Amino acid sequence: MTSDTHLLEPGSAPGYAVAGDPAVLAALVRAEVAWVDVLGRAGIAPAGLGAALRSSLQASPVDLASVAGRGADGGNPVIPLVADLRERAGSDGRWVHVGLTSQDVLDSALMLVARDVLELVADELTAAGDALAGLVEAHRGTVMVGRTLTQHAVPITFGLKAAQWLTSVQDGLEEIRAVRAGLPVQAGGAAGTRAAYHLVAGGAGEELGRAWAEELRLTWPDLPWHTRRRPVTRVGDVLAAVLSTLGHLATDVLSLARPEVAEVAEGRAEGRGGSSTMPHKRNPVLSVLVRSAAVQAGPLAGVLHQCAALAVDERSDGAWHAEWPTLQRLMVLAASTAVTSRELVTGLQVDVAAMSARADAAAEALLSEPRGLAARTGRDTDDDVSSYLGSAAALADSAVGRWRGDR
Amino acid sequence: MTSDTHLLEPGSAPGYAVAGDPAVLAALVRAEVAWVDVLGRAGIAPAGLGAALRSSLQASPVDLASVAGRGADGGNPVIPLVADLRERAGSDGRWVHVGLTSQDVLDSALMLVARDVLELVADELTAAGDALAGLVEAHRGTVMVGRTLTQHAVPITFGLKAAQWLTSVQDGLEEIRAVRAGLPVQAGGAAGTRAAYHLVAGGAGEELGRAWAEELRLTWPDLPWHTRRRPVTRVGDVLAAVLSTLGHLATDVLSLARPEVAEVAEGRAEGRGGSSTMPHKRNPVLSVLVRSAAVQAGPLAGVLHQCAALAVDERSDGAWHAEWPTLQRLMVLAASTAVTSRELVTGLQVDVAAMSARADAAAEALLSEPRGLAARTGRDTDDDVSSYLGSAAALADSAVGRWRGDR
Amino acid sequence: MTSDTHLLEPGSAPGYAVAGDPAVLAALVRAEVAWVDVLGRAGIAPAGLGAALRSSLQASPVDLASVAGRGADGGNPVIPLVADLRERAGSDGRWVHVGLTSQDVLDSALMLVARDVLELVADELTAAGDALAGLVEAHRGTVMVGRTLTQHAVPITFGLKAAQWLTSVQDGLEEIRAVRAGLPVQAGGAAGTRAAYHLVAGGAGEELGRAWAEELRLTWPDLPWHTRRRPVTRVGDVLAAVLSTLGHLATDVLSLARPEVAEVAEGRAEGRGGSSTMPHKRNPVLSVLVRSAAVQAGPLAGVLHQCAALAVDERSDGAWHAEWPTLQRLMVLAASTAVTSRELVTGLQVDVAAMSARADAAAEALLSEPRGLAARTGRDTDDDVSSYLGSAAALADSAVGRWRGDR
Amino acid sequence: MTSDTHLLEPGSAPGYAVAGDPAVLAALVRAEVAWVDVLGRAGIAPAGLGAALRSSLQASPVDLASVAGRGADGGNPVIPLVADLRERAGSDGRWVHVGLTSQDVLDSALMLVARDVLELVADELTAAGDALAGLVEAHRGTVMVGRTLTQHAVPITFGLKAAQWLTSVQDGLEEIRAVRAGLPVQAGGAAGTRAAYHLVAGGAGEELGRAWAEELRLTWPDLPWHTRRRPVTRVGDVLAAVLSTLGHLATDVLSLARPEVAEVAEGRAEGRGGSSTMPHKRNPVLSVLVRSAAVQAGPLAGVLHQCAALAVDERSDGAWHAEWPTLQRLMVLAASTAVTSRELVTGLQVDVAAMSARADAAAEALLSEPRGLAARTGRDTDDDVSSYLGSAAALADSAVGRWRGDR
Repeated sequence: MTSDTHLLEPGSAPGYAVAGDPAVLAALVRAEVAWVDVLGRAGIAPAGLGAALRSSLQASPVDLASVAGRGADGGNPVIPLVADLRERAGSDGRWVHVGLTSQDVLDSALMLVARDVLELVADELTAAGDALAGLVEAHRGTVMVGRTLTQHAVPITFGLKAAQWLTSVQDGLEEIRAVRAGLPVQAGGAAGTRAAYHLVAGGAGEELGRAWAEELRLTWPDLPWHTRRRPVTRVGDVLAAVLSTLGHLATDVLSLARPEVAEVAEGRAEGRGGSSTMPHKRNPVLSVLVRSAAVQAGPLAGVLHQCAALAVDERSDGAWHAEWPTLQRLMVLAASTAVTSRELVTGLQVDVAAMSARADAAAEALLSEPRGLAARTGRDTDDDVSSYLGSAAALADSAVGRWRGDR
Repeated sequence: MTSDTHLLEPGSAPGYAVAGDPAVLAALVRAEVAWVDVLGRAGIAPAGLGAALRSSLQASPVDLASVAGRGADGGNPVIPLVADLRERAGSDGRWVHVGLTSQDVLDSALMLVARDVLELVADELTAAGDALAGLVEAHRGTVMVGRTLTQHAVPITFGLKAAQWLTSVQDGLEEIRAVRAGLPVQAGGAAGTRAAYHLVAGGAGEELGRAWAEELRLTWPDLPWHTRRRPVTRVGDVLAAVLSTLGHLATDVLSLARPEVAEVAEGRAEGRGGSSTMPHKRNPVLSVLVRSAAVQAGPLAGVLHQCAALAVDERSDGAWHAEWPTLQRLMVLAASTAVTSRELVTGLQVDVAAMSARADAAAEALLSEPRGLAARTGRDTDDDVSSYLGSAAALADSAVGRWRGDR
Repeated sequence: MTSDTHLLEPGSAPGYAVAGDPAVLAALVRAEVAWVDVLGRAGIAPAGLGAALRSSLQASPVDLASVAGRGADGGNPVIPLVADLRERAGSDGRWVHVGLTSQDVLDSALMLVARDVLELVADELTAAGDALAGLVEAHRGTVMVGRTLTQHAVPITFGLKAAQWLTSVQDGLEEIRAVRAGLPVQAGGAAGTRAAYHLVAGGAGEELGRAWAEELRLTWPDLPWHTRRRPVTRVGDVLAAVLSTLGHLATDVLSLARPEVAEVAEGRAEGRGGSSTMPHKRNPVLSVLVRSAAVQAGPLAGVLHQCAALAVDERSDGAWHAEWPTLQRLMVLAASTAVTSRELVTGLQVDVAAMSARADAAAEALLSEPRGLAARTGRDTDDDVSSYLGSAAALADSAVGRWRGDR
Repeated sequence: MTSDTHLLEPGSAPGYAVAGDPAVLAALVRAEVAWVDVLGRAGIAPAGLGAALRSSLQASPVDLASVAGRGADGGNPVIPLVADLRERAGSDGRWVHVGLTSQDVLDSALMLVARDVLELVADELTAAGDALAGLVEAHRGTVMVGRTLTQHAVPITFGLKAAQWLTSVQDGLEEIRAVRAGLPVQAGGAAGTRAAYHLVAGGAGEELGRAWAEELRLTWPDLPWHTRRRPVTRVGDVLAAVLSTLGHLATDVLSLARPEVAEVAEGRAEGRGGSSTMPHKRNPVLSVLVRSAAVQAGPLAGVLHQCAALAVDERSDGAWHAEWPTLQRLMVLAASTAVTSRELVTGLQVDVAAMSARADAAAEALLSEPRGLAARTGRDTDDDVSSYLGSAAALADSAVGRWRGDR
């Protein structure tokens, strides 16, 4: 039994793999050992201490359950982790964590986890975008009914619908890359002055901090951000934005895959979509799971903003702590859902005939707008359907062009 | 390493013990086996099948990680669980789950978990209430500064402040008991008609359902509630209410325990409240953790309402699934936080001298209201401080009286 | 132009009529004048002062814009209102508000507004319930497809679906009545000790408070609740619950009214549901507005819980203030949406033929469950469809019976 | 009485001025008339129609209450507005709105309002930043106690604290400018194909759209975004981020302005901060109002994400409508709160002596970290306090440098 077993979150394995407790612990350890390395290279701590720690950890990893359990006393997991690492370092234990504060390590570690999550999400969105671009091209001329407020409106193409999904995936991808490139290290010491860094380094504290950031491949912020939490809400906002985008896509699929509409269907996979009692059913499970995640995301991002608003002093009395599981949940949801969504779009089946038949049947209603326009403008609109298709195709082309050109 | 190891939620062990994945799996199994028992007693399934299953499960429990992992295919964990149980039942496997739908089992199991959570919370609130009642009585006459909008206002007593906490704990306790007593079984079959129950029972389907409810000690609802989700939001609302109550208490403690105020302090415990770098610090860790949980609770309860609003058809396409981890998190938070809060109030230290000294120092300001009242009413208010204390004491007495009389 | 003009909330007029700013101001005035009456009857203030104030207010109402604008200085509208009332009372002005604190008046006034809102909602739900009961009875035997996870599952009846809506309306109605009956007055004075009441009354302060509560027809709480906010979150929770219930109903209607399904339709009304460009369209506007409101409700109720959690001292430094517009919005949404929903269900059109045709067409799939059950149980299930209908009818009867018996 | 009268939101006048209903109506009108202008310049509609409409509107503005009230029928305010404008245009009425859809106009108008809001917020943040930069410079060497988890930690300077506020204001300002520069026009026609634009223009539909965007000074998006709602959530996220930033600042002020701490105070202003009963009180009203707004913001931004996730078809059935009042509230809160916050920081009073006295009194505890570091590192840390001050000053200098250089 591992902590990436989440009974009530089907399909969440990829999320827990990248942002579950083992991943967070690994990031905490990485941050602490990297600091020892930096101290070693600066001639402050013994040169081989980092390597010795790494080798000790490889032989016998830190006990997650023990660290987690002992975290209650100090209200954070860094304190027991430092104790464990110091014990491993023996007589050199005093160099572990020296100059750092718990928040330096925890915030930086969460940025490391966020980086991995954002990379996974970006990879999945890239694959999803490729699949969507293929759908756009394949269905450039696939006429279907456009619907507004649930009712038939005017003709569109499925290519345009897929182009909308593609555009939102691409927008999300660009935002994710930008946020990922800017994730900052947290480096401030007990109350954010960096004084302890200077004390440890005999003055050159900023160099230590910068070397640590480089080692962790995080950016160097002018100021620590212990109670200035935009780095956290920024990750939350972009993850919520991506989850909303994917939720929209899944909501569209769920609507179009209803048996009465049956214009798209999820791809078949052995064993997927079954029912415990109705053998005939093919449930759109992937879309259901994506939608479920999307509904949860916005309020979690909202909580991160509230934690930011409640920040106080040089370290917050609860508003900081509330961020941790909230951000972790958002990261798990985003990573899992990106994987599920990629699977959804790569397998999506489109019933061109059904779309066409429905558009034909609804033609009378669908053309009420162009007829109205003809009346108003005095223009001849004989070519009205083709006009709808031509303009939809142009939009679809533009979306694919951006995707293709942008890679 | 077990799944109740939660690195980023210090102090959450009691919550995961009662509402973590192992507890949910146990409830799912319990619901399925109870159904087999009911079928056995009704002469439908073999009489000994329930006992055989139980004994098989005792010898070799269901594998949580396996069930969780396989849940992705159907979008819920009941499908793989049923497969495992049927395999154990061998040639009698067809009786397992017969007539039920996944939602019957999952919803009922979550009600079982909720019952345990509410019981734990009630027990902890009861202990907290006893401690608070003691504080009220001990500090019936302890004068302190009353504060509004952060500023000194008029005199109050610490007994009255504790009486406010006590009253909200008692109100929460009463609500929890009421909700706990009304938790309903989910019993409807595939689309909520209970037809499958009747088919299985040869007509007496309601009797089967009622027997199942009785076996699980859940109440019998007139109608299934597959897409009528007040039973879920009701649990969410009461847990959020209790967490808000405890959050208020913790916020008060954090404010009064600031070094500049220092009128209360958390109880000392070996190892608790330490810092990774500052040996002198005694952080109010319990209050910090309670406040952290409380800030997260409201939005989770809000998500449950939104899931209820998005319910559709005879089973919702994502809005149901989003409830599960949301409710689970609320339950974990509430249970852990009730334990932490009980520890907080039972250990709370009150500095009567500090309160008194501050009230004396602020006397001039504190008495501006009574002086103003004297001017307006023409009444003699020589006795103004005693008036404040007397009325505060009367309120405190009333709160304790209610607590004592109500047990 | 009046403040009940809300451009971005179509259909909100009934909500603003009962919970908009004029209604809140009227409640504030009512609370203040009632206090003067109470003082007058107790022989403290001049006997005719209340009547004089009322007559002055009738001749020339308090200026809403002026009070609202001047509220910024003190952070609440009671301070300028009291100034205005004192001015009207002339030399007796000192008796206005004497002994009260702003929070006494504002909290009590919001409870008065809540009472009117809950009454309106209850009336609308009662009418909606009557209409729904009629639908249940009319469609006791109307077969339709049951859907789970968007896909066809087993047969149900429309009567059962309407019975589910009815049951949730009735549950909501009962909760609303219970909450409405328990709305408490706020009566504590500056820091919640009630000392000022005693000072004003020469000792009999509680009698004054009770008389005020009686005058306002609010209940008398043992303790003031300035920072113990369950009375507010309770209103929020029940309003969110009702909005979720109505949102569920609207979501069902929107799904069933899609042209491809076309099993129900909103009633027609002159001018309603039109499009700015497509003359053929009949948009399900009522359902759209209900769903829009429902999606907003949960997070607002969540904010109220967070405000409760952040309560501190004897009056909160922002968490109190954040409640006001949040509760007001919830009240406006609930009242408007109850009216819209009543209109929706009273006009709802059911296409029995469409339901029947679809159920016939899907019969093969719909009966896969009973056939599976027959195989598992060895029972003869020739009568399977009738079994589904019979059990659905029994549930529908039970819901109507409860509604009819309960009035 | 005007619709910018909001009794329960003291200090909200600046927000309603820029984002209240009159501002929204003006933006709707502006969008419609600009379209007529574009059509006129393209030789499609009569050349003077735009001017005629403007002059008619100047003489007799559209009736807000009437438009708002009639919006219920179609579920949006554009339909009645178009009817009113067509009536004014007389025989040329058919050119009004021709080719547009309601969502084109409403979404574009909300972007216009957002632009004004973001401009106001940017102006206020700029003024606040100037004031904060002044505080940073003035208090470069002002020692104070650093606090973590409410307890005394190590020395900091007030200059550093102000530098943190300044940095978050500057980050917010940069984000606001970026979002403001990218606000897109909505231009898609009935179902987002832009076909109607082409029909109206005889082919050159995109040119019409681009001219409209230019006229409105909004950017031109490759694709319409009727159900791709990142433009809305992006505004929501940045407003929530700014409100969180200001909330953090206010929370700090409220904590430091408590009488027991008394290290900062809000500036005095005639009539502000008074109490209805306690003449001595000076309540920190500005901070209270800022904090109140900040607590509400995150969940509103979260709702916008959920609306984005629930988007469906070519126009959403409720998720679009729920955005309008949610975004409006966020805009009102952000604009009002930016004004209040600027007032707060420009008036903020700093008690250097109190800070210094407290740091002296706490010196023993404050220096436990450097002493511990000395023991661990073997370094001489005689100069420990100066080290804290020097590093704090360097950080403060860097923040001011960025501010000064960046203007």
